[in-house]
Amino acid sequence: MKKSVGPTETKYFTFAEAQGFELESGRGLGPITLAYETYGQLNSEKTNAVLVMHAFSGSAHVAGPVTADQDPAWWDFMVGPGKALDTEKYFAICINVIGGCKGSTGPSSVNPKTGKPYGLDFPLVTIGDMVRAQKALIDHLGIKKLHGVIGGSMGGMLALQWIASYPGTVECVIPIAATLKHSPQQIAFNEVGRQAIMADPAWNNGDYYGGTPPEKGLAVARMVGHITYMSNDSMEQKFSRRLKDDNTGFKFSADFEVEGYLQHRGQSFVKRFDANSYLYITKAMDYFDLSDAKWIPPEGLPGTRFLVIAFKSDWLYPSAQSQDMVRQLQMKQIDATYCEIDAAYGHDSFLIESEAAKQSHLIKHFLAKRK
Amino acid sequence: MKKSVGPTETKYFTFAEAQGFELESGRGLGPITLAYETYGQLNSEKTNAVLVMHAFSGSAHVAGPVTADQDPAWWDFMVGPGKALDTEKYFAICINVIGGCKGSTGPSSVNPKTGKPYGLDFPLVTIGDMVRAQKALIDHLGIKKLHGVIGGSMGGMLALQWIASYPGTVECVIPIAATLKHSPQQIAFNEVGRQAIMADPAWNNGDYYGGTPPEKGLAVARMVGHITYMSNDSMEQKFSRRLKDDNTGFKFSADFEVEGYLQHRGQSFVKRFDANSYLYITKAMDYFDLSDAKWIPPEGLPGTRFLVIAFKSDWLYPSAQSQDMVRQLQMKQIDATYCEIDAAYGHDSFLIESEAAKQSHLIKHFLAKRK
Repeated sequence: MKKSVGPTETKYFTFAEAQGFELESGRGLGPITLAYETYGQLNSEKTNAVLVMHAFSGSAHVAGPVTADQDPAWWDFMVGPGKALDTEKYFAICINVIGGCKGSTGPSSVNPKTGKPYGLDFPLVTIGDMVRAQKALIDHLGIKKLHGVIGGSMGGMLALQWIASYPGTVECVIPIAATLKHSPQQIAFNEVGRQAIMADPAWNNGDYYGGTPPEKGLAVARMVGHITYMSNDSMEQKFSRRLKDDNTGFKFSADFEVEGYLQHRGQSFVKRFDANSYLYITKAMDYFDLSDAKWIPPEGLPGTRFLVIAFKSDWLYPSAQSQDMVRQLQMKQIDATYCEIDAAYGHDSFLIESEAAKQSHLIKHFLAKRK
Repeated sequence: MKKSVGPTETKYFTFAEAQGFELESGRGLGPITLAYETYGQLNSEKTNAVLVMHAFSGSAHVAGPVTADQDPAWWDFMVGPGKALDTEKYFAICINVIGGCKGSTGPSSVNPKTGKPYGLDFPLVTIGDMVRAQKALIDHLGIKKLHGVIGGSMGGMLALQWIASYPGTVECVIPIAATLKHSPQQIAFNEVGRQAIMADPAWNNGDYYGGTPPEKGLAVARMVGHITYMSNDSMEQKFSRRLKDDNTGFKFSADFEVEGYLQHRGQSFVKRFDANSYLYITKAMDYFDLSDAKWIPPEGLPGTRFLVIAFKSDWLYPSAQSQDMVRQLQMKQIDATYCEIDAAYGHDSFLIESEAAKQSHLIKHFLAKRK
């Protein structure tokens, strides 16, 4: 059993107080607060930082024990002393995205112009905006070059966006179960989630803070998401067609275990996530598009190497999308390694310790490799 | 261009008026009305009847022009003079399932005990109950043996259930894009649809007839369903990531064509389908389970042959499920042919004329084959 990073603390960095921050849409946002956590020590040359990007519903709390006001750490098996992202060597940083609801400025934050939560007055943000806000904090920490950026799912999109926005500022880029752009099917699943939220009268056009949030709509959205994060095989293994113990026969409540599980996941999600953030962040993912190789500078990306990881059972972000990514990079003579892992759990494999043994091993050695 | 069957008429058959009809759940239902259509002529020996089973949201109107009160015919390219199911040779019958909302008795029908629509007082029905009700009409028509039973998706499950319930009464069984049982993933997608309906306050515990139906919840349910009926590739072909013409940039209305399309499909569905029927019929599908080969009589099924069709791009009812079906039949020495068609459209391929050319050819020859 490897050691934990121990108790952690969420820190806050506020900027863009005076001038605001211009977003890709042309609209401004400010002040912006970023919630972040760090693990390990930044060395004196400031060359050992690894930026860890969280997925859609993640927070800055990557590793360590849970405290009352935090979500469980989402990558504890990956980040810590002796772990793949070894905190005895690296200084790991995770920053909650803007638009979210885990401490960084988002639609549930107070709009300084009105003194009330933004709601739908919050401007639409892109993956590019999220990364540009993170860059302000990395600059503030005095870090000129990152040893790595790494993340799964949306975290992988953020990692790709980082190198696209700031070429030359990172050595190792590790997108896991990610894509250069959402397919229509991925957009469609997100759109169903958004429609489920907006169909809930409690959503009230985004103006529900202080009242009852659209819990039913958000739970349905999460249920759809959750099905897409698992593989058919892992569902088969986990539930088969077993009936629930308290199943009393023919009715519309949950008979099958899989129904009860999904309902539980939906209901627990509404306690820890804001419905408006669901809208903003899924939309940012849908707009994300680096499929045009024009983001790669004419001189390529010397000094940067990529490890692209996909999971065989991931049907939401199928491995063909990771292969497209590697093809795009290799066409431009960029150092890119591809690894498809035979994990059974579907898209969420990157979050499952038992599935991630191979992933951890690969990442550990890729980060440690000397040029 | 092949000829149409011409104008058709929906007929009605009412039974179980006095005694009611005992359902698998032990509850009774009666009287029962079945809406049905027929195409072609029943021969004097009554040996040329083919029972066509509709899918989840289908009606008895398989072929012919649309009239004001009917849905568009759902298999017009398959059923007609000279077509795969040649109405110059066969007498085709399609019967709307009980629990539905297309003319047969269902939750929106009037409960004779109260004089009001059943709503959730309607008893849960199974695929077995649906088939047993259909048998009453087939008996009434004086047909002792069917030349065939055929259907796609739930229609395939109904076809399998027919031969399971009434071995010896049919020569050709043709389940298309079907399964012996729903996987947890299939149950999960249905459950999300049910939850979306029940989350809509307008659902009002099923009691909304005469008022406003749960249109928003039902539309979300249909959107989820529709994604699962298409393949990723066919969505890619149809929409790619094109933005809608009237897209005005960053907002939460539909920007991408795929979003507008899904919203349109959801909204048009609520005009033609009853939310409670959605609950009842999906539940019947989830309970369906013939995976235990005990339904096959000890003597096998002499005189019956199966053509099992699957589509390569169908990820909702993956071809492995059809292969399991064929394996089960062949283990019992039953005459079963398997064909996996390289159609691109996903689960709905059986309804798409351009995808179904191979399917039509196979079916035509399979029905015509002499023992």
